[in-house]
Amino acid sequence: MPTSRNLENRRVVLTARPIGIPQAAHFAFDTAAVPELDDGQILVRNRYLSVDPAMRGWVNAAANYAPSVPVGDVMRSFAAGDVIASASDLFRAGDLVSGMFGWQRYAVVAAPTARAVAHRDLPLSTSLGVLGVNGVTAYWGLLGVGQPKAGDTVVVSTAAGAVGSAVGQIARLKGCRVVGIAGGAEKARLCRDMFGFDAAIDYKADDFSAALDAACPQGVDVYFDNTSGAISDTVMSRLAMRSRVVVCGTASIASWEPWPGGPRVERHLLVKRARIEGFLLFDWMDRYDEAVRDLAAWVRSGQLRYREHVLKGFEQAPDAIAMLYRGENQGKLLIEID
Amino acid sequence: MPTSRNLENRRVVLTARPIGIPQAAHFAFDTAAVPELDDGQILVRNRYLSVDPAMRGWVNAAANYAPSVPVGDVMRSFAAGDVIASASDLFRAGDLVSGMFGWQRYAVVAAPTARAVAHRDLPLSTSLGVLGVNGVTAYWGLLGVGQPKAGDTVVVSTAAGAVGSAVGQIARLKGCRVVGIAGGAEKARLCRDMFGFDAAIDYKADDFSAALDAACPQGVDVYFDNTSGAISDTVMSRLAMRSRVVVCGTASIASWEPWPGGPRVERHLLVKRARIEGFLLFDWMDRYDEAVRDLAAWVRSGQLRYREHVLKGFEQAPDAIAMLYRGENQGKLLIEID
Repeated sequence: MPTSRNLENRRVVLTARPIGIPQAAHFAFDTAAVPELDDGQILVRNRYLSVDPAMRGWVNAAANYAPSVPVGDVMRSFAAGDVIASASDLFRAGDLVSGMFGWQRYAVVAAPTARAVAHRDLPLSTSLGVLGVNGVTAYWGLLGVGQPKAGDTVVVSTAAGAVGSAVGQIARLKGCRVVGIAGGAEKARLCRDMFGFDAAIDYKADDFSAALDAACPQGVDVYFDNTSGAISDTVMSRLAMRSRVVVCGTASIASWEPWPGGPRVERHLLVKRARIEGFLLFDWMDRYDEAVRDLAAWVRSGQLRYREHVLKGFEQAPDAIAMLYRGENQGKLLIEID
Repeated sequence: MPTSRNLENRRVVLTARPIGIPQAAHFAFDTAAVPELDDGQILVRNRYLSVDPAMRGWVNAAANYAPSVPVGDVMRSFAAGDVIASASDLFRAGDLVSGMFGWQRYAVVAAPTARAVAHRDLPLSTSLGVLGVNGVTAYWGLLGVGQPKAGDTVVVSTAAGAVGSAVGQIARLKGCRVVGIAGGAEKARLCRDMFGFDAAIDYKADDFSAALDAACPQGVDVYFDNTSGAISDTVMSRLAMRSRVVVCGTASIASWEPWPGGPRVERHLLVKRARIEGFLLFDWMDRYDEAVRDLAAWVRSGQLRYREHVLKGFEQAPDAIAMLYRGENQGKLLIEID
C-alpha cells in the first residue's frame, strides 16, 4: 500500500474573499501534512501550476458555474505533475497527469479526476496550456460553438493570449481569414508574425474602430470573445449575416458588482440573425482527448505555435492572477515549482 | 389579356422619414392610376391591410434587414385580398392571396410574390395574423430557434399580442409550462383565461420581478423576446442552464438613435451556457406553408385562439402604427378596406 511518507505539503490558501481581481494579499502560504491515500486515490507531485483568468470567478462570491473556493481552502487551479504514489488501478508511480490539483506541492485526488498526459514527447507544461485547458477551450469553443466555415472572417480578442492565439491558428487551419485584437502594438505584431494571423489590431490605439473596419471588409462571421466590454461592443456592430459570437471570457470586466452596462445587443442580433452563446470547457470534457490529439499533432507539425510565461518558484503564485489581469505575461502563465 | 380597367388607386404614401415610431403625420393619401399588367403580374384588390411592429423598422433610416421605404413611396405592408385580374398562370381571378401588397386599394405585383390563401373555410383576415406572419413567426421562432422541450418553462413578452399569444399556445401544445409577460392586469388575465397560459404577469406592476420568480421557480428555459428593454433584462437574470433566447422584436425600445444601453449579457450567457439568437421570418419562408398547415388545424380544433382588432376604413391607416405602439389595440391590428 503506497503512503504519503509523512511528506510536508506547502500550499497557497485563500485568506479573504476578493471583490474583482484577486491580489497577492488574498492568499497566504501554509504547510500541512499530506494525508494517507484512500483506495482509489493518487498522490501527485505538482511540477507546474496553471494561472487562468477563470480563477477570478472561482474566488468571487457571485454566482458562477462552479462553487466559490471557501476562504481557508487551498486555491483551486489546474496543475500538472507526476504520480508518486497510487492506490488506484488507473495510474502508477511515474505517470504524468494533469488535473484540478490546486496551488500546492502535493495533491491527493481521486484517480478518475486526473487526466493522463499522453504526449510525453512534448513538454509537460503544454498539458496546462496549448494541449490543456487553453488549447481545448480554443478548439471546442471555436469549432463546436463558433462553427467557422472556410472563407469566414474570424475575430478573436486577447488574441496574443493562450486561448486567443490558439483560436486564431485553428481558424487559419480551417481556411478562415483571422483578425486578432490585442492590447498593444507588440502583441498585435506577435499575432501576425508568430501566430500567422491575417491581421491584428491594437485595441488601445486611437484608430481601433477604423482598423477593425479595414481588417473586416465583409463583416465578422465568428467572434471569439474573451473580453466583453468596449472591445466586444465594437465588434458587435460589425457582425455579418448569421454570424456567431462565442462568449468564452470577460477579461475586460474588472467587477460584476455593480453589474456593468453596455450597448444593447438585441438589434444587432435581429438585423443580422446572429447568435451569441456562452461556452464553458466543462461541458465538453467528454471530447477533451479528441481535441488534444488534433492539437498535439499540430504542435508537432509546427502548425500550432504557443508561448509560455513561466514564473520560477512557488512563491510567485499569490500575485500571479493579478499579474495576468495586469496583462504583464508573455504567453500562457505558469508557475514552475522547484 | 386582363387589364387594370382604368381603376383609380387610393394609396398611403410615406411623406417624411420618422425617427422612432411613425405617426399619422408621416403619411398622406394620394391617388394614382393602376398600371396595366405585364406578363407574370396579377392585380389584387386589397381587403385587409396589416399593421405590424416591424413596419417601424421599414421606415426608419437606420440599417435594417430590409431597405427603408423611400419617402414618396406607398407604405410597405402585408395585405390580403382577391385577385381581380391575372397575367400569370399561378393565379386566376377570384383567388384569395396575401403578400407584401402595401397600403393601397389595388396592388400590381409579380405573381410569385403572392401567397395563395388555402384555408378558405376560415376568415380571410386570419391570413394576416394567426395564419399569416404573426402565427408563422410564433411557430418558427419558437420551434425553429427556441427549440422548447416538453417540461420547459417558456416565457414570452407582449404575451397578449398576435405573436405572443400564439407563441404561448404553441408552447403549451408542445408540453411546456408557459408564462406570459404583458402590459396591464387585463392583458395578463386574457393570457390566462383566453389563451390558457399557466401564468401571466403584468410588467407594469410593482412586484413584476418577484412575480416572475414565483412563476418560474426552475428558471427560464426559453425566452421569446418581443420587447428588449427592462422586461428582457429582468428575464435574462433568470435564465436556466442551456436556455435559449429568441430575439423576435424590440417593441419596448422607442428609438435606436441614440443606441440604448442595458445590463451586459455576457456573464449570463457564460454562467448558464445560454444562447441569444435573432429571428426573422423572411429566413423561414420556404417553411411557411408547413407552419400554416399546423396553425390552421389548431385553429379549426379550437386549440389555437386569436383576437383581431379591425379598424374599419382605409382612412384609419396613417395612425395605425402609432396606435400599435401605444398599445391600444386588442389583438392583431388590421385595417379593413370598405
